[in-house]
Amino acid sequence: MRHTVSIALEDRSYSIEIGAGLLSDHATFAGLSESSSALVVSNETVAPLYAQRLQQTLASRYKTVHLVTLPDGEQFKTWQTLNTIFDALLQNNCDRKTVLFALGGGVVGDMTGFAAASYMRGVPFVQIPTTLLAQVDSSVGGKTGINHPLGKNMVGAFYQPQLVVCDLDTLKTLPEREISAGLAEIIKYGPIADMAFLDWMESHVHALRSGDAQALAYAVQRSCEIKAWVVGQDEREAGLRAILNFGHTFGHAIEAGLGYGKWLHGEAVGCGMVMAAHLSLALGLVDSAFVERLTRLISAAGLPIQAPVLDEKDNAGKYLELMQVDKKAEAGEIRFILIDGPGKACVRGAELNVVRQVIASC
Amino acid sequence: MRHTVSIALEDRSYSIEIGAGLLSDHATFAGLSESSSALVVSNETVAPLYAQRLQQTLASRYKTVHLVTLPDGEQFKTWQTLNTIFDALLQNNCDRKTVLFALGGGVVGDMTGFAAASYMRGVPFVQIPTTLLAQVDSSVGGKTGINHPLGKNMVGAFYQPQLVVCDLDTLKTLPEREISAGLAEIIKYGPIADMAFLDWMESHVHALRSGDAQALAYAVQRSCEIKAWVVGQDEREAGLRAILNFGHTFGHAIEAGLGYGKWLHGEAVGCGMVMAAHLSLALGLVDSAFVERLTRLISAAGLPIQAPVLDEKDNAGKYLELMQVDKKAEAGEIRFILIDGPGKACVRGAELNVVRQVIASC
Repeated sequence: MRHTVSIALEDRSYSIEIGAGLLSDHATFAGLSESSSALVVSNETVAPLYAQRLQQTLASRYKTVHLVTLPDGEQFKTWQTLNTIFDALLQNNCDRKTVLFALGGGVVGDMTGFAAASYMRGVPFVQIPTTLLAQVDSSVGGKTGINHPLGKNMVGAFYQPQLVVCDLDTLKTLPEREISAGLAEIIKYGPIADMAFLDWMESHVHALRSGDAQALAYAVQRSCEIKAWVVGQDEREAGLRAILNFGHTFGHAIEAGLGYGKWLHGEAVGCGMVMAAHLSLALGLVDSAFVERLTRLISAAGLPIQAPVLDEKDNAGKYLELMQVDKKAEAGEIRFILIDGPGKACVRGAELNVVRQVIASC
Repeated sequence: MRHTVSIALEDRSYSIEIGAGLLSDHATFAGLSESSSALVVSNETVAPLYAQRLQQTLASRYKTVHLVTLPDGEQFKTWQTLNTIFDALLQNNCDRKTVLFALGGGVVGDMTGFAAASYMRGVPFVQIPTTLLAQVDSSVGGKTGINHPLGKNMVGAFYQPQLVVCDLDTLKTLPEREISAGLAEIIKYGPIADMAFLDWMESHVHALRSGDAQALAYAVQRSCEIKAWVVGQDEREAGLRAILNFGHTFGHAIEAGLGYGKWLHGEAVGCGMVMAAHLSLALGLVDSAFVERLTRLISAAGLPIQAPVLDEKDNAGKYLELMQVDKKAEAGEIRFILIDGPGKACVRGAELNVVRQVIASC
């Protein structure tokens, strides 16, 4: 059981390999460019579980295989941590052909990708996402970057990997909370693009939470297919690609407001989707049955559906302030990803008093 | 008297405008993309001279025009300084359409370009080089980046500006030492691509040093034409573009070995060209008359021609160690840009004992 999803981006095209046992299989990496050296970037949690397995497989391909282990958590997605990757590359005399392997979740993938984009102005890299969230979302599509104290993912690059490897075996060691976080990004694909997939999610959410291998394989595959379709049409987010950020405008405000790392990214996105659905309802774009249905699924996935208080005095004001530094904002106007009827998303502004009411009611 | 040189890079094509009085002319910026805000990045030396003039011209185009002033010098081409640009962008709620203007020399241009490449994964930017060196070399071609303690320009991006504006008036305030540094990069274009231009340089080097406007205009124009031709064929330095680094392999070792900022980049490149010419001679690629001719011109430009001692005990060893982290090195082997007959460059390795002898003799 092995699936390949292709991302068509001209000379930056690549494939996503989905299956079990991929990390130990030499064939997985056979198509990569020639080099004498490789650098595996992982974190304290993932490295002890899978780094050795990967390094052994890579040792047959590269003369030297180095390892850098980063601290684990969104709060370490900083320049300081990124710089430890550059230190390792330079200390080991890594050159322009050195291949970087991101072994971990979204934070490791985003930072390794940005390091690959920037080291000597660009070296090849491979995404090996080990969390459900990274397999279905962040490892695909070439968004890389780090956080700035004033905003999430504010510094980065569009930089495509040579290959994405989703080894489903790595999900077996994933804590329940991380599975739920991944489900948020999977649920997302339904309302923005494919209601049949939302139906499927409703009937398989419990199988997914209990780690059913077949259900997980399909959820990863279908998510990657939808993402590949969107990214193939709009690599640098000139328009369409923004719909993948459904739930993220509110979600980023939650993450920044609570402090990075308090809620998982997927948890913030889950709650953010509930808020964005309510805003869609307030603007007359969907009915309340749709909002209730989506909220029920998000809750069944084990995700928070109630907006956290970010400021005791002026909670809505705090949300608005944090959303103004969102990358989609233009000339100070916040732009929201809303559901414009089931299976279809739109990007638009909204009157601030309506947004305030929605925040208060969530 | 106004010249336009075009860089043909498909959807990343742009023009280089060369002339006097361009900073105060609204027409200079008429073709730029629409935005409500602009950020001018300059340094302590250049900002007091030209920032106000530029801001006034831009004020008719953009609702807000912010200014960031960086410290002046290669030793400040660091992440810390770069981050002050991100701070300013975020504090002023700059969005994805904000245009960055690099007003200064190569350091300001490289950092502003990398900031533009990375802020929100890419915003437009304009190069306004105010040094001779930046006008003839670093502002053209999209190489951006910062230094790492272990190597120069090790972190960066290929990212093209929307426009390059070479206002020749800004050269009037340039110190003699900076004019000489710029001449190094101009002299470079002769031996690698155009011996007729080398002839012209020999007969105009004194006019250029004394600030002759017509001579400077032609030197900037011809340099940009040659650079545009090379970059148009090989944007990301897969091959040909490396010849623009003639003198830079030794030059980077000098800069790193002495400490960034001690010698100007152009001074290190001038001396580095003498060393690379001697290595070309040692490998039988050119005759001694060519080396003498080039050395005489570099000296006449007011540039150092004697290699500085980087290590009292093992000087050649120190040079080799520093050159091994050069971006052109592959699997530890240093690759040199050498002159392979007048007007033609090649990229190749060399036996270490030959390189050692050359370093000792320079």
